[in-house]
Amino acid sequence: MKRTIARALGRAVLSAVLLGWPKPAAQAATQGTPPLTRIAEIEIDPQQVEAYKAALREGITAALRLEPGVLSISAVSVKGHPEQVRIFEVYASQQAYEAHLQTSHFRKYKAATQSMVRSLKLIDTEPIFLEGKH
Amino acid sequence: MKRTIARALGRAVLSAVLLGWPKPAAQAATQGTPPLTRIAEIEIDPQQVEAYKAALREGITAALRLEPGVLSISAVSVKGHPEQVRIFEVYASQQAYEAHLQTSHFRKYKAATQSMVRSLKLIDTEPIFLEGKH
Repeated sequence: MKRTIARALGRAVLSAVLLGWPKPAAQAATQGTPPLTRIAEIEIDPQQVEAYKAALREGITAALRLEPGVLSISAVSVKGHPEQVRIFEVYASQQAYEAHLQTSHFRKYKAATQSMVRSLKLIDTEPIFLEGKH
Repeated sequence: MKRTIARALGRAVLSAVLLGWPKPAAQAATQGTPPLTRIAEIEIDPQQVEAYKAALREGITAALRLEPGVLSISAVSVKGHPEQVRIFEVYASQQAYEAHLQTSHFRKYKAATQSMVRSLKLIDTEPIFLEGKH
């Protein structure tokens, strides 16, 4: 299991290099599967924004701590519209994403926020450049 | 100048802790200014997508390497619509963002892509949770 995760991460790093990270990409061949990136646009019941944000933070914290295949999740709300949430997600692979959906912390988040979410739009995306210092 | 950047980064880290990073937040007081987060939704001339992506990658690479106040920039395109680009940006502060706009690499990117961009929508956002492993 650990080897599988290490391989998935290795592929993700290779893919990141291919995607334009400022590192030599000469050694990166075609074998890498790209990270899976997705944007979620969520509208929350305005009366439950704080409770939603708490559940979201708890879910993201657990995912980043427990799942090596969850590379990055950032959540923001549109300025002046705290009920409009956008989440930018980066997984090491399709498999890492599917595994994430099965975790107890993700299921807990989904159950806890079911009555808070008015609409959910998932936008599948292709990475162009993934990088950060934080 | 270096002290100013160091202070800005210090504030950004404090803010990140306040925003829910899984670290003790007891020492984080109200003095921190939050990071500035923004989403850009850009539509590119379909004939110039590859040239646009090259200019974008060059601009992001320079910003991350040269500007301590640029904490993270990730760019993706909507799956099946390579001309629809979304950029998720995290700056240490409003000042760091304004400094970014004055850099030669940002100005070069803007000039190079001017004829490639059909529309640009900037969405100011409030951070809920900023974190990543990459």
